[in-house]
Amino acid sequence: MIRIGIDIGGTGIQVGVVSEDYAILSEGSIPTRKDLPFEEQVRQIADCVMSTTAASGYSIDEIESVGVGIPGIASKSGEIIKCTNMGWSHVPFREVFSRYLDKPVYIDNDANVAALAESVIGNSAGTSSSVFITIGTGIGSGIILNGKIWSGAHHIGGELGHVIFDLDGVPCTCGNHGCLERYCSATALIRMAREAVREHPDSMMLSLAGQDPARIEAKTVIDAARAGDALAVSVYGRYTDFLAQAVASVINLLDPEIIVLGGGVSKAGDFLLNPVLQKYPRYVLFNDQLLTPVKLAVLGSEAGIIGAAMLS
Amino acid sequence: MIRIGIDIGGTGIQVGVVSEDYAILSEGSIPTRKDLPFEEQVRQIADCVMSTTAASGYSIDEIESVGVGIPGIASKSGEIIKCTNMGWSHVPFREVFSRYLDKPVYIDNDANVAALAESVIGNSAGTSSSVFITIGTGIGSGIILNGKIWSGAHHIGGELGHVIFDLDGVPCTCGNHGCLERYCSATALIRMAREAVREHPDSMMLSLAGQDPARIEAKTVIDAARAGDALAVSVYGRYTDFLAQAVASVINLLDPEIIVLGGGVSKAGDFLLNPVLQKYPRYVLFNDQLLTPVKLAVLGSEAGIIGAAMLS
Repeated sequence: MIRIGIDIGGTGIQVGVVSEDYAILSEGSIPTRKDLPFEEQVRQIADCVMSTTAASGYSIDEIESVGVGIPGIASKSGEIIKCTNMGWSHVPFREVFSRYLDKPVYIDNDANVAALAESVIGNSAGTSSSVFITIGTGIGSGIILNGKIWSGAHHIGGELGHVIFDLDGVPCTCGNHGCLERYCSATALIRMAREAVREHPDSMMLSLAGQDPARIEAKTVIDAARAGDALAVSVYGRYTDFLAQAVASVINLLDPEIIVLGGGVSKAGDFLLNPVLQKYPRYVLFNDQLLTPVKLAVLGSEAGIIGAAMLS
Repeated sequence: MIRIGIDIGGTGIQVGVVSEDYAILSEGSIPTRKDLPFEEQVRQIADCVMSTTAASGYSIDEIESVGVGIPGIASKSGEIIKCTNMGWSHVPFREVFSRYLDKPVYIDNDANVAALAESVIGNSAGTSSSVFITIGTGIGSGIILNGKIWSGAHHIGGELGHVIFDLDGVPCTCGNHGCLERYCSATALIRMAREAVREHPDSMMLSLAGQDPARIEAKTVIDAARAGDALAVSVYGRYTDFLAQAVASVINLLDPEIIVLGGGVSKAGDFLLNPVLQKYPRYVLFNDQLLTPVKLAVLGSEAGIIGAAMLS
C-alpha cells in the first residue's frame, strides 16, 4: 500500500507517493492556479495524484489515503475553512476531490503536518510531544501531543507566530501589534538589520548587499555575523535572544518533550542553534530541572509531503 | 467510596473528603508549618486526613485515593519536584505519606487541579479541552486536553504567567522581564493604578484608598471604574485589553474549547468578563470562525480540594 501526500503552496502544489516506511517513491507538481474555479483546481490536483501514482509503479487501488497540507485551516470533516493564498474559504475539498478519486482524504495545516513528519521520522522521532517551529517569512508552528497533531478544538490553534510577544509592538500583517513572528521570523531579522545599518553605514551587511539596505536578507546578516561584523553580531545576538524567549515561552506553557526548529533561518545550523540553546534556559521558570532538548529539523521541504501522507 | 483532596497553600493546608459525585462531605485544615521537618509536615497532613475522614462518617478503608494540589510541580511518581513556599525540593511525598496512610497518592499543580475541577463540574463541564486562568497575585493556569491535565513532558508546563508578553518589559519575580503575569495579574492592575494616580491625584482611586497610593488594591480600581472615575476607567480598560490579548494568545496557540477565568480579580464578574469578551476577538488570528467561549469560574476556593480529589 502507498499513501499520497499533497503540499499546497502559494506558487506550486507538490504531490508525493509515499511508502509505508515514509520514503517518497515519486513526486509530481503543478503550478498554483488561483484564477481557476475551485472544482477545476481540485480536478488538476487529482490528475497530478493519478499521474504521480502511475510514475511510482503502483496502482490507484493501492492508495490507502490522501493527505493534504495547506497554509490555512481545515476541519476534520474535510472542509478547508480558510486558505488565504489560494482564495479558499469554506470549500468542501474532500467532497470535491472524491469525485475524481474516491479515497479517504485528510487535511491539516502545513506546519502541523511538518511537525508530524519530524515527530515520526525526523529529529523528534520517538517522542510523544513536540513543538515544531518553522522560521521563514513568518513563524509557523505545529504541536504534537500524545503522538498526534493538536490543532485545537476549532482547528485554529498552533499559531505561535501570533501569540502576543511585545505589547503595543511592531505592526503585524494580521492587523495586531507585537505578534511573536514580528521578532522571530526571517522578516524580523531583516527588518532589524535594515534599521541598524541606517546608523552604521560601514557595516559589512551593507557591503554584502551592494550598499543597498533593501537587498539585505537573513543570510546577509548571518554571513556578516559569522565573519565577525560587530553590527551584525549585535543584531543577530538580539534576534537569537528573541528566539530563545520564544522557545522558553513554549516550554513554560506547554513543556513539550522536545522543540524542533525548521524553516529557512534554521539553515544557519549550529550558528542558530547554539546561541538559542545557550540563552533559553534563563527564561524557563523551572530551569533547574532537566532542560528541554532543542534541535534542528532534518526533513527539509519534503516534510510537507511526508507529513501530509501520515495524516489519518 | 470517598476520595481525599488536599490543597497545600502558603499559610494553610485544606483537607476535604469528597464524594463520588464531587461533593465535599467534610473539611479540615492545619496551618502550614515550614519550620517542621518534611516528614513531620507530612505526618500532620496524614493525621488531618484521618480526622477529617472520621468527621465525614466514612472509614479509612473507604478512601479510594488521595490527591494533592501544590503551588509547585510534581512527578507522576509522587515526588514533589519543587514547592518553593513550602521549602520543598525533590521530596518523596507519596513515599512518606504512605507510611502513615497506605492509599494511592496523586500530586499535581494547584492551578492544574482547579482547571480539572472546573472542567468536570464547573463552567467548562462537558468540554474535553479547556484552559483555566487564575488571576490573583500572579497568573496561574491549567491546561486540560482530551479531558486530562496537560502539565507537560517534564511537569513544568501550564505556566501561562511566565510566557513573554512584553519584550524587555516589567521585571518579574521570576527574574525575567515582561512575563504575562506582570500585565494581567491583580498585582499588575494595582501597579498600573498606583503609577497613574501619581499624575492624577484627584482620582477617586486615591480617595477610596484614603489618599495613600500604597493602599490601592485591585478592588479599589474596579470600584472606581464602576463608579465612572475617568482615570480608573482608563487604567482598567488598558488592563482588560491586556487580559484580552492573553486570552487571544492562548487561543492562537492552543485553541481550547473554552477558557475559564478564575481567581480574585474574577470576582468582578461581568465587569471583568464583558470587556474581555468584547476585546479578545480582534487579537485572534482566525477570528471569523466560531469564537471561543470565555466564562468565569464557578467553583471558587473549593476547586483546589475537589480537583485534587479528582486526580488519578
